[in-house]
Amino acid sequence: MKIIVDAFGGDNAPLEILKGCAAAVSEYDANIILVGSKAKIEQVANDNGILLYHMEVVDAQDAITNEDDPSEIMKTKNKSSMAEGLRLLSKGEGDAFISAGNSGALVMGATFIVKRIKGIKRCAFAPIVPKDKGSFMLIDAGANVECRPEMLKQFGIMGSIYMNKVMGIKNPRVGLVNVGTEEHKGGEFQKATYQSMIEEDKLNFVGNIEARSIPEDAADVVVTDGFTSNVILNLYEGVSMTLMKKIKNVFSTNAKTKLAGALMMKEMNELKTQMDYNEFGGAPIMGLSKPVFKAHGNSNAKTFKNAIRLTMNYVNGKVTQEIADAISVDSNDFTE
Amino acid sequence: MKIIVDAFGGDNAPLEILKGCAAAVSEYDANIILVGSKAKIEQVANDNGILLYHMEVVDAQDAITNEDDPSEIMKTKNKSSMAEGLRLLSKGEGDAFISAGNSGALVMGATFIVKRIKGIKRCAFAPIVPKDKGSFMLIDAGANVECRPEMLKQFGIMGSIYMNKVMGIKNPRVGLVNVGTEEHKGGEFQKATYQSMIEEDKLNFVGNIEARSIPEDAADVVVTDGFTSNVILNLYEGVSMTLMKKIKNVFSTNAKTKLAGALMMKEMNELKTQMDYNEFGGAPIMGLSKPVFKAHGNSNAKTFKNAIRLTMNYVNGKVTQEIADAISVDSNDFTE
Repeated sequence: MKIIVDAFGGDNAPLEILKGCAAAVSEYDANIILVGSKAKIEQVANDNGILLYHMEVVDAQDAITNEDDPSEIMKTKNKSSMAEGLRLLSKGEGDAFISAGNSGALVMGATFIVKRIKGIKRCAFAPIVPKDKGSFMLIDAGANVECRPEMLKQFGIMGSIYMNKVMGIKNPRVGLVNVGTEEHKGGEFQKATYQSMIEEDKLNFVGNIEARSIPEDAADVVVTDGFTSNVILNLYEGVSMTLMKKIKNVFSTNAKTKLAGALMMKEMNELKTQMDYNEFGGAPIMGLSKPVFKAHGNSNAKTFKNAIRLTMNYVNGKVTQEIADAISVDSNDFTE
Repeated sequence: MKIIVDAFGGDNAPLEILKGCAAAVSEYDANIILVGSKAKIEQVANDNGILLYHMEVVDAQDAITNEDDPSEIMKTKNKSSMAEGLRLLSKGEGDAFISAGNSGALVMGATFIVKRIKGIKRCAFAPIVPKDKGSFMLIDAGANVECRPEMLKQFGIMGSIYMNKVMGIKNPRVGLVNVGTEEHKGGEFQKATYQSMIEEDKLNFVGNIEARSIPEDAADVVVTDGFTSNVILNLYEGVSMTLMKKIKNVFSTNAKTKLAGALMMKEMNELKTQMDYNEFGGAPIMGLSKPVFKAHGNSNAKTFKNAIRLTMNYVNGKVTQEIADAISVDSNDFTE
């Protein structure tokens, strides 16, 4: 299997990306195409004793940053490592593309260069988020602020296939975020989406779910529009961070609590990692004709190596083909 | 000052309500009108040694429950203690009404019986929610799933006045929940609301805020539609609960962490209370011609007593008059 890697995406590129690739080559038998400034890649590899074994380098002089407007990937930044990598994928030079760079640019670039599966209305950005035990997929998280009900139904189908094939969850439960669990809850959009999903045989639709129950275990695939999911992801992080900060303050209250803090420092750090979705599984971009995966922007070597493993599972699970098959049966139901 | 109290609202009515009223009479010089079954109130007071000093009782045989559809307050439940209490307020028999009962019914009943301030498009349910330090108002939280931009602007004005007059915050910062802080973020609805709010002199509008920064300290008045606020409140609770549960599990990991748990049990319980919005300030219903306050459904004597104090501040702060004045200047801007 050959994975195309954006060597200049993310806060710690290219060093941590190269280290992560080297680890993936040795641990998972991956073959890598590194995209980015050949001179810089070779110099960083040389300076840090990284062997570019099973890696070829495709030169791209430019790189897109998080400060760039996503649409620049089709304009001034169409020679960036991200755009070049997506073109290589599109031409069949590799099996998947992975980047830790600008999420918006990645979704937009992938949609234009790699293109959607026939019948898919919109691509979706779908992070894997930790819950009490295990994780769930939040779909769509950011790409589509305004959605139509049939798009959310497709998000549910795509998420279901991913959680089954890549995460090994049998018959994944799909839930729709709403203000209450009853069928009649929400506005016109939620009601129409509920109807569209309940009538779909391919979904194990558990109905409306309240945000309260998401961190516990409401569903394996949490479906919502891009606005609501942004609020969910953001608040997940915000409440966790504030609470962890408050606990840290509790530890420094008095001699007893200071001792308590020292006694459980290791376990608390583990918990912090567990609850931080930045440490977690990254985000596949769903609905594309070939697998594209977003690693976290702050990826270090270890998290990037893990992201490569998830991307390989995404390829091995034949997720793209499964989605195409599931949608093609339906595609007459949809109007462009 | 005379506060009208729904004696049969909430999970612990009437006993905890009566105890809370007795405490408020002795601590804050409140005068109370208790509404509900006179026979039951007198029996419970008698059985528990509660003196109904400075309290009169207005008989109402029926009560509305959380299982009742909110609209029943205008139909089969129009003789309930909640409906009777709202009618007493409307007739000028007291200065404010407070209930720990069915929130939806309270908003609907108050809108029909007490009526809105002239020029106010929609009443808003506006809980006071804990943040890292202090609290913020979330408006609207539940009453209006589908809103127009000018409604959100009014929510901002009303929330501002409340946080200033009742909570003592000087020049409260008003923020609009969005998917990013930049002016152009979000869909058409968010863009139009942003414009409407930025042009309003009566608001200290800090612009768009991301959900991530709400628990820290993004604003004193967090403005959004009823759908988004439901997700925010629910997730606030869900993430806190899941995290606290995980920390409890950490405490039971091994002998060291068990000792740590024992050492900081008191402080952790205090933190849990701090983060639980059910323990916090309740929710004024904003935009009515007279003050109506929702105490938490699980109120005990102490939380209900606190809710009475907040309701008295709501009256003393002349919030209703301030809102009427602020809106009347504007009312030509609005179409019904």
